[in-house]
Amino acid sequence: MNSGLNFLVAARQCEISELEHLALTSELVGVIGRLVHALQRERGISNVYLASRGARFGDALQQQVADCEAVQAQVLTRLDALDTDARRVRNGARLFSRIAFVLHALEGLPALRQRVSTQSVPAEEATATYTRLIAGLLNVVFEAADSATDPKISRALVALFHFLQGKEYAGQERAFGGAAYASGQIDAAHRQQWQHLIEAQEACLQVFRDFSDEAVRSAWQASLPVEAVNTLERMRRVASANAHGTLDPNASATWYEACTLRIDAMKSFEDQLAANLRLLCDERIAQAHADLRDQQAILDALQRQAGDAGNEPPALLGPHLERSILGMVQEQSRRLQSMSDELETARAALNERKVIERAKGLLMASRKLSEDEAYKMLRQTAMNQGRRLVDVAKTVLAMSDYL
Amino acid sequence: MNSGLNFLVAARQCEISELEHLALTSELVGVIGRLVHALQRERGISNVYLASRGARFGDALQQQVADCEAVQAQVLTRLDALDTDARRVRNGARLFSRIAFVLHALEGLPALRQRVSTQSVPAEEATATYTRLIAGLLNVVFEAADSATDPKISRALVALFHFLQGKEYAGQERAFGGAAYASGQIDAAHRQQWQHLIEAQEACLQVFRDFSDEAVRSAWQASLPVEAVNTLERMRRVASANAHGTLDPNASATWYEACTLRIDAMKSFEDQLAANLRLLCDERIAQAHADLRDQQAILDALQRQAGDAGNEPPALLGPHLERSILGMVQEQSRRLQSMSDELETARAALNERKVIERAKGLLMASRKLSEDEAYKMLRQTAMNQGRRLVDVAKTVLAMSDYL
Repeated sequence: MNSGLNFLVAARQCEISELEHLALTSELVGVIGRLVHALQRERGISNVYLASRGARFGDALQQQVADCEAVQAQVLTRLDALDTDARRVRNGARLFSRIAFVLHALEGLPALRQRVSTQSVPAEEATATYTRLIAGLLNVVFEAADSATDPKISRALVALFHFLQGKEYAGQERAFGGAAYASGQIDAAHRQQWQHLIEAQEACLQVFRDFSDEAVRSAWQASLPVEAVNTLERMRRVASANAHGTLDPNASATWYEACTLRIDAMKSFEDQLAANLRLLCDERIAQAHADLRDQQAILDALQRQAGDAGNEPPALLGPHLERSILGMVQEQSRRLQSMSDELETARAALNERKVIERAKGLLMASRKLSEDEAYKMLRQTAMNQGRRLVDVAKTVLAMSDYL
Repeated sequence: MNSGLNFLVAARQCEISELEHLALTSELVGVIGRLVHALQRERGISNVYLASRGARFGDALQQQVADCEAVQAQVLTRLDALDTDARRVRNGARLFSRIAFVLHALEGLPALRQRVSTQSVPAEEATATYTRLIAGLLNVVFEAADSATDPKISRALVALFHFLQGKEYAGQERAFGGAAYASGQIDAAHRQQWQHLIEAQEACLQVFRDFSDEAVRSAWQASLPVEAVNTLERMRRVASANAHGTLDPNASATWYEACTLRIDAMKSFEDQLAANLRLLCDERIAQAHADLRDQQAILDALQRQAGDAGNEPPALLGPHLERSILGMVQEQSRRLQSMSDELETARAALNERKVIERAKGLLMASRKLSEDEAYKMLRQTAMNQGRRLVDVAKTVLAMSDYL
């Protein structure tokens, strides 16, 4: 067998190996989704527990912490199973850095829970800590999506990431709207902030839809609890159109319930997406193995026809076989090229987030802001100027010389 | 030691492993540059040998084939040394596909040489075969540049790739101008084609300069053989400004010599660039190892201070150490983010070529053209419309629905 053909086979094996690594990462992403959900619930329950000075949700909190710890153990098991042999992992430096952040934050959870149970932490601080941890977990999913080299899996990961991120905005809206209704009033600034949460949520779900096929889109539409969504929309409208700035404090529970019904529906659907992703990985791996077997069979046949001429070059194979080898080489190049084009499209969807992250980083460095402060500054500018967050971020980057 | 910190170390190890792979690839790129040069000479000599019906350059051809075979053996040795263990190679599928193409083309060389020596192949066909092989070798360098994850090395590879590609256009111009002068005449279409080779060459050298530091740029400027470059410029001008379309056939040898002097100077400079690249890889690897040792030392110190408390989480480390770990995690994330920003800039320079490749692929598929025909069609449109090739390619891609 000549070495050109060996490299053709090696190229296929690289593809299979990348797919296998993607399958592992996809498993991890599925479990991370479950942990995000458990933490979102724990965040909400802690919030009510602290806001009510321990009067409400004490039992629910204990139960939720136990649930959360169980999922956390699963994530840790997955991470142990993740191949940390540096040479085998694609995009390892960034993925592992994100994981290091998450593990470090998880290690701080017992201390936070202790402070929550003794009510020695303000509700906002506890909420902010949970939110940072969830953001860290979503960053792991983001890196997984960004490192995928198979366009189909990349599309599925981009869709799943945006679904998860949209669900996180939905969770933040639940807390935000709940607090607004409970307080019985809302001012213009809070209205705008609320509006921003709605828009960010819808933008994420739009990307999710764009990267899903028709079947998934219909299933998603069908899975929504219609009544709860109607209640939600009505209560959003009341809060935003209310000229006096007063809200009915008694409606707070209704709001919370409607949001929770919707978020739980999202969670079920997310499980489905994660299951689809695992299936897709299995299919792609099986397909790649089948392709490799086919290719190997052709190469073996070529070798047999070349006879036992030792290591002679395929010039001996004659013009017909010569062409079929060249065809195979060219076909493989074309296929990889078209995969790379498709991948580029999928990655473009991740770029908006990268632009915002870079603008945030620039502001943090040049104006000595924390990450939260930098984000708020960007968001405030977007609100004041009625522009999209990503456009403000682009302007900030374009102005970097002035900062 | 807790697993969050293990992942921090694993992230560093990933970086080192990628750098080590890049160093191997860079070695390969250096040898490929030498093979490209040998093939360029062989192409030129074969061309004269065939055009003169064997009257000229017979001995030179034999000598050059021997030289070329020696470099070819070096490339094959390098490729054998390249780790084909699929799991270890980044961007392996595309890199290996390109290598498979090159090896396949190299295996066809003995047959081509046989046909050249017996003068049983037209000069144009031989030239086209060499040119395809050289393009395949440059594609390997391109994939290497495109897969680099270290911004400094990526910049050096982008510069080197464009230098090599510029040198290849210079070689094509030598043949083109030589043939024009030898024929004693030139028409408008050939003038435009010549102009295109000059522009493509200059665009490549401009990217090379953009991605090089001041020292390299000055060294490049100083390395040019002034007299030969002046002769070249004068003869370009004569050919392009000549209203009658007649050229002095006796000037053909002068043209060839001036071009060769310049190309040989480019070759020496290219060797320097390749040596710089190897040095840079060594430096980056040494630096990464030093960083890892520093990080490990801090982690060990943290562990000692935490005492022999077994596997307890760093909550036990106290708020001061807690902050220093978080700082380390955040610093690493920020550093990777900024590396990724720099990388994006370097890759942008490769995108023009990708756009052209994609447009070519689209034309090949939609209009059943060969690669050469597709490229000629794009180039012809660019000439007719007085636009840049990449802009025409973009238009073609934007119109893909109509094709």
